[in-house]
Amino acid sequence: MKKVRIFVTYKESVFDPQGETITAAVKSLGFPEVKKIGVGKFFDITLSDEADLDQTIPAISEKLLVNFNLETYRYQVLEEQK
Amino acid sequence: MKKVRIFVTYKESVFDPQGETITAAVKSLGFPEVKKIGVGKFFDITLSDEADLDQTIPAISEKLLVNFNLETYRYQVLEEQK
Repeated sequence: MKKVRIFVTYKESVFDPQGETITAAVKSLGFPEVKKIGVGKFFDITLSDEADLDQTIPAISEKLLVNFNLETYRYQVLEEQK
Repeated sequence: MKKVRIFVTYKESVFDPQGETITAAVKSLGFPEVKKIGVGKFFDITLSDEADLDQTIPAISEKLLVNFNLETYRYQVLEEQK
């Protein structure tokens, strides 16, 4: 099995309201050392050994996982067994 | 500045409905090589140089970021400048 983690974040230019809210909440809880919190999601994907990662990962990101108007992604191969 | 990424996932024993739904959707889109997709969120945290990570990160995770009934977390130091 192959394992890949896809990270999805807002684009730099897009306002991250959840991150702003959490940052304000953490500061108000008494953590002035926290300067900024950004929020993202990730997908841990298990694929069969035959999967072509360079093809499958961009394809499912574009078709389902990522909203390219607001978001961007990158991925990391966690495990690749032959 | 120090930078830390906190990963939050469901505990192993907790059903992940979003992951199940996405897995089914991806398969139905014509990607039989995808076996399983799990979903999580992450927080990219920027802290001042004086921050004590071993103390601050668990504290804000417990107080705000993680629901310990359902979720678990781990964190990774991305950048630690002295």
